[in-house]
Amino acid sequence: MNRSIDDVSDRSITASSGSDFLQLNIADAPVGGLSDWLARRLRDAIADGSLPVGSRLPATRVLAAELRVSRGVVTEAYQRLTEDGHVAGRGRGGTVVVAAPVAAAPVPAVGSPVSAPFAVTPPGADVFDALRAAPARIDLSPGVPDLAAFPRAAWLRAERAVLKALSASDLGYGDPRGAPELRRAVANWLARNRGIRVDAGEVLITSGTAQGLGLLARVLRDDGISAMAVEDPGSLGARQHLHNRQLETPPVTVDAEGVRVDELRATGARAVLLTPAHQFPTGVVLGGVRRRELMRWAGEGGLIVEDDYDAEHRYDRPPVPALRSVLPEQVCYAGSVSKLLAPALRVGWMLAPPKYRDALVDAKRFADLGNAVLPQLVLARLMESGEMERHLRLLRGRHRRRRDAMIAAIAEQLPGAVVHGAAAGLHLMITFPGARFPDTDLAAAALARGVKAQPLSWHRQRVGPPGLVLGYAATSPGGIGEGVATLGSALAVMPTGR
Amino acid sequence: MNRSIDDVSDRSITASSGSDFLQLNIADAPVGGLSDWLARRLRDAIADGSLPVGSRLPATRVLAAELRVSRGVVTEAYQRLTEDGHVAGRGRGGTVVVAAPVAAAPVPAVGSPVSAPFAVTPPGADVFDALRAAPARIDLSPGVPDLAAFPRAAWLRAERAVLKALSASDLGYGDPRGAPELRRAVANWLARNRGIRVDAGEVLITSGTAQGLGLLARVLRDDGISAMAVEDPGSLGARQHLHNRQLETPPVTVDAEGVRVDELRATGARAVLLTPAHQFPTGVVLGGVRRRELMRWAGEGGLIVEDDYDAEHRYDRPPVPALRSVLPEQVCYAGSVSKLLAPALRVGWMLAPPKYRDALVDAKRFADLGNAVLPQLVLARLMESGEMERHLRLLRGRHRRRRDAMIAAIAEQLPGAVVHGAAAGLHLMITFPGARFPDTDLAAAALARGVKAQPLSWHRQRVGPPGLVLGYAATSPGGIGEGVATLGSALAVMPTGR
Repeated sequence: MNRSIDDVSDRSITASSGSDFLQLNIADAPVGGLSDWLARRLRDAIADGSLPVGSRLPATRVLAAELRVSRGVVTEAYQRLTEDGHVAGRGRGGTVVVAAPVAAAPVPAVGSPVSAPFAVTPPGADVFDALRAAPARIDLSPGVPDLAAFPRAAWLRAERAVLKALSASDLGYGDPRGAPELRRAVANWLARNRGIRVDAGEVLITSGTAQGLGLLARVLRDDGISAMAVEDPGSLGARQHLHNRQLETPPVTVDAEGVRVDELRATGARAVLLTPAHQFPTGVVLGGVRRRELMRWAGEGGLIVEDDYDAEHRYDRPPVPALRSVLPEQVCYAGSVSKLLAPALRVGWMLAPPKYRDALVDAKRFADLGNAVLPQLVLARLMESGEMERHLRLLRGRHRRRRDAMIAAIAEQLPGAVVHGAAAGLHLMITFPGARFPDTDLAAAALARGVKAQPLSWHRQRVGPPGLVLGYAATSPGGIGEGVATLGSALAVMPTGR
Repeated sequence: MNRSIDDVSDRSITASSGSDFLQLNIADAPVGGLSDWLARRLRDAIADGSLPVGSRLPATRVLAAELRVSRGVVTEAYQRLTEDGHVAGRGRGGTVVVAAPVAAAPVPAVGSPVSAPFAVTPPGADVFDALRAAPARIDLSPGVPDLAAFPRAAWLRAERAVLKALSASDLGYGDPRGAPELRRAVANWLARNRGIRVDAGEVLITSGTAQGLGLLARVLRDDGISAMAVEDPGSLGARQHLHNRQLETPPVTVDAEGVRVDELRATGARAVLLTPAHQFPTGVVLGGVRRRELMRWAGEGGLIVEDDYDAEHRYDRPPVPALRSVLPEQVCYAGSVSKLLAPALRVGWMLAPPKYRDALVDAKRFADLGNAVLPQLVLARLMESGEMERHLRLLRGRHRRRRDAMIAAIAEQLPGAVVHGAAAGLHLMITFPGARFPDTDLAAAALARGVKAQPLSWHRQRVGPPGLVLGYAATSPGGIGEGVATLGSALAVMPTGR
């Protein structure tokens, strides 16, 4: 049925024909995305004129009954359209179309270029995929080391040695905890570089910290834990992963000394996710007083999940020992090669407190039967031969020069910006105190000019001044200069820009 | 408190001191394994005499209250001891210790040698790890191709080419669906080898079918599906993975024509896991009538999960087209390189029906952000260059000779055994019609003599004649002869052996 809008007397969709008129077929809807799907369909209908400005949407109760979905699905879809400014609630008058989008919103598809990864608030599950797929000249996204420096020749040499030494049974199904060689190499690496003394038998090899967090979340849920407090600001990606595993993430303020332990205590959460050595995204190092407060909190039964994501990268200060080195029973420690070599390797490690060790191994077994063996053996060789430390020293020099180039460019091109957390890591955070524009607008304007950066608000749960999180490690000094200059021109068009 | 058993007047443990007497400390118990832990502690106490034969266990209600666990935990622990033959219910007389194990049961540990992977019924989550870790001279476990034939030189050549051609951005975070190169190569492979026409955009790269099943189970749970029917006999491993994701697995009989579709219909399940091209473990090929019945069932809304685990390996018959090739909308297809190259590579693929495609991509993203990129690009080269087909031809010749060697050895050494499913695949199933010994005893006796094989009962949900599942692909003809001869000597000591 495809009646013209003129057939509907009062320009509203009659209650009994809402889904019919819009040709909504719930069978088309993807699982787990009903509200998204409905909002998209309604937006399309507004864009193509089937639902012109002034028309009234069916009552949520009625549309829900017709589509046989819960009323919450419809309410949420209407809410999104309201937030987009396409419809407005008119009390007893119902929900009315007030503005049409210029064109039907494109259906976001993973991997295909998406021009507006900043359009949806809060960001959806595929926001990082969308940003990655967006075309750009210069990529200042945080989270990657200098990938051009990846030690290809050393990798190939190690792979040749591994293939030569491999036994046939090494190629069968393996230990879900990881190859013994890599577990030993990681234990030695952590002793040398992070002050952690751990038996190789306690190391669990994961497909990176994202997987480790997911496995741990599952184990904690089974232990009756339903919330993991997180730093605010703190990693959006980590938060998305915890939500996906049905863990709530109460926010805890980060100040100049790190996470506020009094606030943590007030949340009542029994677990907290921290980045103590170099807080993401602020770059703050957890202070001594806070460390002692945290140790007391953990001693009373709290679990600290230590995401030691980039602690090996430091420039102007001595290394900060991992919390795990002093609290082996209360800390679940996670690290990976993503920031040491490359995220595309998908290899990480986790040290679980004794209580959760067996359950984590079970979770890993049922996740994928354990990591692939060849890359594990190659990494073990790189770590044990000193190749990895050599690479880290090379990276440190390159990264430091790039960081200095970025700080200089910011001082020149973005004089109103305040720089945070420059003593270590692979990124900087900048804020614009007193400014009132949404930082997603700034990131969108930069992307339109060919430069990728992440808005600080992505990594916040509560409101704060606008800012950007800028990776410098994977871009040449020249690219950094050009990228920051482009940010400057994007900032200039912000309504309250300097 | 460590009172001697003599203090307890009637050789029973008084209700108020059960956990105390046994020095049970619930804080020692691992998460998610309370019953296991309790059963182990009680078994130890029986073995070391703290709970001598004739003594009475505390009432389940009382012990549960003392340990602050649910009564089901205690009931289950008692049930295990009953099944082991250590305790017996005496009605009003309570649960009494009737037999002591010869020694405390060893705590099974992943990766450490375990002499008795066949002692626990039904097999636990770590049973395959335990069997793998057990020392043996000859391994006739099913599920692996000839691993000694792994094309090491071709792999290294492809890796060199990949490292040379790689861009720096390839080393960053990637598409959670997999590298475009491998998705294209898999689509081409499936067209050439399995009669499947699929767009590369629909291919999801996984860390093997175990992961794929887990991701799919999660998506199906979100769609309100709580059961996936499975073949009986059928893969224990697959069943364990589905249980781990809270899916029930109603059994459906497999006869000479394959799965019984009338029985499937009677289960009421909305999804079924099948191995149509070469049923595991029976080796039956799904017959034409059954295929049509299945298509009708699927057409009424049923989802078929097609585990095409070893269909490329066939010897005496033409290829069987995949169900996915005729039912793209109702089949979720899963394949991997585990049987083509090596399980240790942990790479597989899944083709989902349109309805579940986006949800599966989300599940993969939150599982691990996608597979590692280097092995994907290497595999893509091996598949597109014809190297993989060359390897498959080489394997076919070797496997056929090994299969023939095994059939000859069985005819000579195990004359009472019936051989099933020899026309394809990497394993045989043998049964002993009329025999009454538990096949786990036979497998245990074989392992004690240095030969690994899987008891058929592991792969059954319902009772059936004893049997073994024997892999021949990874063992030389000489090893196969010796292994089967050893099975013969193990069979000779079975109580009702021929």
